[in-house]
Order: sequence, then structure tokens, then C-alpha cells
Amino acid sequence: MLGNLPLRDREEDYINIQPIQRGGVLTPEARKALIVYGDGYSVCDYCLKPFRLDYIKKPDIQSFVRELAEFLNMEEARIVRGARNGFQVVMNSILKKGDIVLVSSLAHYSLCLAVEASGGVWKEIPVNKNNILTPDAVAEKIEECKPKPKLVAVHHVDYQFGNLHPIEEIAKVCHDYDIPILLNGAYTVGIMPVDGKKLGVDFIVGSGHKSMAAPSPVGVLATTQEYAKLLFRSSQRKGDLTGRTFGIKEVELLGCTVMGAPLICLMASFPSVKERVKHWDEELKKINFFVKEFLKIKGNKVLSELPRKHTLTKVDTSETFGKVAEKHKRRGYFFTDELKKRKIVGLFPGSTRSWKLNTYGLTWKQVEYLVNALKEIAKKYNIPIR
Amino acid sequence: MLGNLPLRDREEDYINIQPIQRGGVLTPEARKALIVYGDGYSVCDYCLKPFRLDYIKKPDIQSFVRELAEFLNMEEARIVRGARNGFQVVMNSILKKGDIVLVSSLAHYSLCLAVEASGGVWKEIPVNKNNILTPDAVAEKIEECKPKPKLVAVHHVDYQFGNLHPIEEIAKVCHDYDIPILLNGAYTVGIMPVDGKKLGVDFIVGSGHKSMAAPSPVGVLATTQEYAKLLFRSSQRKGDLTGRTFGIKEVELLGCTVMGAPLICLMASFPSVKERVKHWDEELKKINFFVKEFLKIKGNKVLSELPRKHTLTKVDTSETFGKVAEKHKRRGYFFTDELKKRKIVGLFPGSTRSWKLNTYGLTWKQVEYLVNALKEIAKKYNIPIR
Repeated sequence: MLGNLPLRDREEDYINIQPIQRGGVLTPEARKALIVYGDGYSVCDYCLKPFRLDYIKKPDIQSFVRELAEFLNMEEARIVRGARNGFQVVMNSILKKGDIVLVSSLAHYSLCLAVEASGGVWKEIPVNKNNILTPDAVAEKIEECKPKPKLVAVHHVDYQFGNLHPIEEIAKVCHDYDIPILLNGAYTVGIMPVDGKKLGVDFIVGSGHKSMAAPSPVGVLATTQEYAKLLFRSSQRKGDLTGRTFGIKEVELLGCTVMGAPLICLMASFPSVKERVKHWDEELKKINFFVKEFLKIKGNKVLSELPRKHTLTKVDTSETFGKVAEKHKRRGYFFTDELKKRKIVGLFPGSTRSWKLNTYGLTWKQVEYLVNALKEIAKKYNIPIR
Repeated sequence: MLGNLPLRDREEDYINIQPIQRGGVLTPEARKALIVYGDGYSVCDYCLKPFRLDYIKKPDIQSFVRELAEFLNMEEARIVRGARNGFQVVMNSILKKGDIVLVSSLAHYSLCLAVEASGGVWKEIPVNKNNILTPDAVAEKIEECKPKPKLVAVHHVDYQFGNLHPIEEIAKVCHDYDIPILLNGAYTVGIMPVDGKKLGVDFIVGSGHKSMAAPSPVGVLATTQEYAKLLFRSSQRKGDLTGRTFGIKEVELLGCTVMGAPLICLMASFPSVKERVKHWDEELKKINFFVKEFLKIKGNKVLSELPRKHTLTKVDTSETFGKVAEKHKRRGYFFTDELKKRKIVGLFPGSTRSWKLNTYGLTWKQVEYLVNALKEIAKKYNIPIR
């Protein structure tokens, strides 16, 4: 115990397969920096004129923000208070009350809330039977909408199936209709290579705590030179009495955004993050190995696309562990218990029908251990294995 | 060095008098919690239905948020992404385009930006010659405005002079005009006792990283039952295809807000914070002692109200250290150098005319050391001391 707080040891004592947590595990470098940069306003010691977070040179936030833009192959970037705050900055900048934003039928709620908060209306583009958003579906939905949507905002990889959507083709469709496109890269930026120019998107939003090895809340918002002028516009108003203005403070960011621990960790992790996206193929080998072995338990299904193009994966075990749960006195918790006994956590407690896991950043040994544990549990409950 | 990051040791090796940093220094409890709760989404391990940050029971965020409301003697509270995000939630909820918000002529820029971002217009209430906002000035400004302002948003203690403003009387004026009042408690919540009911305010915004011993960005937004319905309204929209809704997710908060380190530190520090506000009188004794001794250096002035009612204080040394700077080869930096040699940091580099300091949380020994250091420097440069 830490006072009244439970000790958190899941990354030290367990194999954590929690779907949203794998990419946000701190690097050792971040953990080290965190210890000395915990105090409020810890990055502001050398904040000099013009008094803005992204101009601070010690620590070198200025270079870091520029590197972030390069990393995404976009022209401008800013630190935001989490991906959803990035959505909000875009929505508030480009929407008027009642404007339509197209999202996927698998869109994350926070994107929809950002549209709603800004007075916009979100409408859903259907995914196909394989749970993939197609350029045709996007075109069709655009045609359906009167007035024309102001923005198309789509996930690079969705949170429900972890499927990879054909952004490059979708972006072309959007631009044919002269509609800007926002990429929700919460599951990709910091995890796999993301090239904004190649994808042809106007806005990229990434999440520090989801995929860039940083604490919550921090994110990145990147855009083109053109849209940067709008999104990062500085304050235009003037005090009616004092005549004061706020110079280069950016209105939608409310000035500075993340002045401490989450940002310093994002910076400390960044060299590792830049390196790790180069080894995405290895991560895909691991999840595809997992899936292959997992399907040897007869009756198990994978609900995500195959082969896997992302480590976040949705599976269905209602015919295997689900059947056991029906008759077990602990119901679905038997499965959680069996996994926990084997030091595996992160599954939604009690789930035995459809559930998600994420193997990102696990070692080969851990992935093998994980799949063997599932087989062991299957064997214990007489579920046949191929 | 920590990789490419400079080592930060100002709280360990120096006496830090930085005006905005004193209240955000982590408690040992927070530092301890930070080490194990750094990972992204670290507080979400036991997020169960209805899937909202303030319903999580392990760690007990649910009770904590309730305690925060009680601590401020308000009816409802929420965790926000810094004080400015708290302002934003209020502005977005109550303003329509062009609506007027009255702020003080000493208002912090982030409050003005929150008004601007939401489409509102901020107008300034003048402070009196002692830099205090008076109820009369508020009434007069309200009378001047056509249409009537939608909100009065005032600092409890302002960031420029650290003066304490008569909120109770100002709130009465606002309510006489049937206008709600927002208290910017960035410099008071977590530092000195703040009783929302006694003050008669409708909204209180506090800053975790400024005054509640937490990392940036985190804050608290507290309100009445009446306004909670508006500010914390849940999502009202529905997917046009899927029919899905987002239950109790709160629109203006964009759902969950701070899912990690800054929140856990706020929680870990909270028992100390609740205790420390009871000893505010001791903090005032220290700053008033400082001021008394500081004024013994002939020519020194205090620009903040006297006696001090807050530890953040603006002083003027243009007749003393300012005069030395005029002839010194290092100009104003001589003063920064002399202080740094004596292990005192936090003064804006090069300042010798008017500058701010904050003694909050310094020990008596440190305050004595600080004032003696100033006298020593005065003596060295032949500035007379009474």
C-alpha cells in the first residue's frame, strides 16, 4: 500500500495484456525522468520570452515538438492534453454549430464527444462485413449528407477490432470532395510507422499514454502549414480597459498545455519510440504467432482481421472458455482466476465470450507463455486442442 | 543528465522562490505514488461499468472526487486537465457566441483565452489603486455592459500581486444581478482554506500543479447541484447507423480526463493538502516576516497589499538592486548570479526592478536564510540597511 493507494505492480509481477495499456508502459528512460520532473510546472524553470511551452529550450521542448512533426511527416505539431483534446482543438477550429463530421461506425466515443462538445453532429460511415472502412463507403456517406460534411475523422486502427483501415485511399476520396481528413492515430502513432504525407491526411492525433510510453494525459496534434494557421491561431482579443493582448498564446490550446511529468516522459521515451516503430514487423510476427496457436484450441475464434496487422486483437471464446463458465460456480471469473494464477492480467474481469488483448511490447517468451497458459487452461477443462 | 534531459534538482539543491512553483512541489507521498503509477492509463486497471474515471474504486477515485467537493464545500466536483480546462468547461457550457464574461483587469491570460475559445467576449473590471477588485467596481461594470454579462469570473488571489480579493462581497453583487460567479482558485485551492458556500460562488476552479502538490496538468472544477446538471451533462447524441449512445460520459469533459500520474499524485498529496491549509496563518507569518526584513533594505518596496494575505508577493528593487544593475557588467544578471551563488533560484533571470517571489512551503530557516542573503547582497553593493 502507498498510504490509501493500492500498490501497482502489474508491469513488474504480471504479463499485462490489457488492450489499451501496452503502448503506454513507460520506458526506463521515462521512469527515470519522471522521478525528478514530478513537481508541478517542472518543465517551466527556463521559460523565457515569448513564454510558450513549445519555445522552452531547457529541457529542449522546442526541438522535441519539431521532431514530433518530422516523425509524423507533417509540417506542424503541438503537445495536447491527450488525443481527445487534440480532436477538440480541430473540431472547435473548423466546425460551426450543426456542421457534420463523418466518423466510422467503430469510432471511439471520445471523438464523438469532441464533435458534440463543439456543437457539431457526427454521422457514421458503415464498416464492411470484415469490419473495415472502405473508400466506397466513405464516398457514399459523403454523397448522402446534406449539407456536405466539414470533416472526415477516422481511426488508423480502430479500438474495437484493432483492424487497419485503408487511410491512403480514404484520404483521396475525402480530398476529391474537398473535405479535410483527420487521422485518429491513438493506436498507431508511437507504435507503428505513420507517415502523414504518404497517407495524405490533414490532421494527425496521437496519444502519449496510449502509444508513446507516457503517463496520461498527453497527446500530439500534427497538421499542415495551411491548417496550422487556423488550429494554432493566436489570441485576437484585447482588454477593453488595459489594452493588453496575449501575443502568441494559442487560443484553442488555451496557451500552454502539459507543463510537467507526462510531457517529460514523452520526451524521455521518444528516442525509444522512434526506434520501436521500426520493429513493428516483429510485433506483428508475435501477434500472428499468438493467433495461430490460439486457434488450435478448438472452437476459439478471432474476430479481428487475419492475418493481424495490429497487436490489439479481439477474440471469441464463447464455444470454449464460455462453455466452461456456464457451468462453473465462479462463472466467467474462473477464467480470470486461472489467468491470474498464471500471472496474466488485463482481461476484462469475468469475460469468457468475446474479449480483447494486446501483445504489444511483450517478449517472444511472454507471448509463448501466454498462449501455453491458455492451452493449459483449455486442457484442464477438457477443451480439445488441435 | 537524463539522456538528453537536464537533471532537475531545484527542490533538492536550492531554495526555490519561483512564484508559480511553490504550491505544486510534490509531497513525499506523491513522489512515492508517482514511481509506481507512471504508466499510461495506470489508474484504469479496475475500471468497471459504467466506465468513468470518477466511478473507479481501486484506487478510490470515486471517494476522492466526493472528498474534493466537500473540501471546497461545494456540491459536485470533477477532475479536469488543469485549471484552464476547468474554465473552458464552464465557458463552453454557459456561453453563446458574443456573450460577455467579466474578468478582472489582473485576470490571468488562460481565463481570457478560455472565454475567447468558447466564442465569448471578456471585458475587464478595473481594480482600485491598491490593486484590489471591489464590489462597487463589479456592480459598475455590470451596469455598463449591454447585454448583461453571462458570467463574472474572478481570481481569489491574483497572479500579478498575490492580493486577496473580497469574493464574498463580489458574489453578493453578482447574485443581485442574477449573474453566476466563477472563482479562479488557482492560487488558493490547496494552499489556504476555501469555502465555496461561505464565499457564495457558483463555480470553483483549482489547479493541481499550481497549488495541490501534483504534476501538470490536473485541476479541479467544483460547482453546485444546479450547475452540475449543465456542466457535467452527459452525451445526448446517438449514432445514426448503430444507434449507439455514450451513457454517462460527460460531454464537456470529453469523458475521462486525467487517467494517470497527475491524478494519482493529487490523491496521494490530498491528506497533506487538507492538513496544510489549516496552517495558512503560519505561512502568512513567514511572508510578513520576510516583507518586514526585506523593507529594511533602504529603497526596497513591496507592490502587493500589506500586510500580506498571500505568500505570492511582488516587490520593487529598482532603487536598490536595480541601481547596481545599471552599472554592473552583468547588468541585471548580477542579481541572479548572487542569488544562485547562495543557492536561491526562481527569480526571473535578469530581473532587478519589479519581480515576484513566493515563500509558500519554505521553512522558517529557509525564509530567514533568504532574507539574510538579500541583505548580504545589499551590503556587498553598499546599499544601506536600516
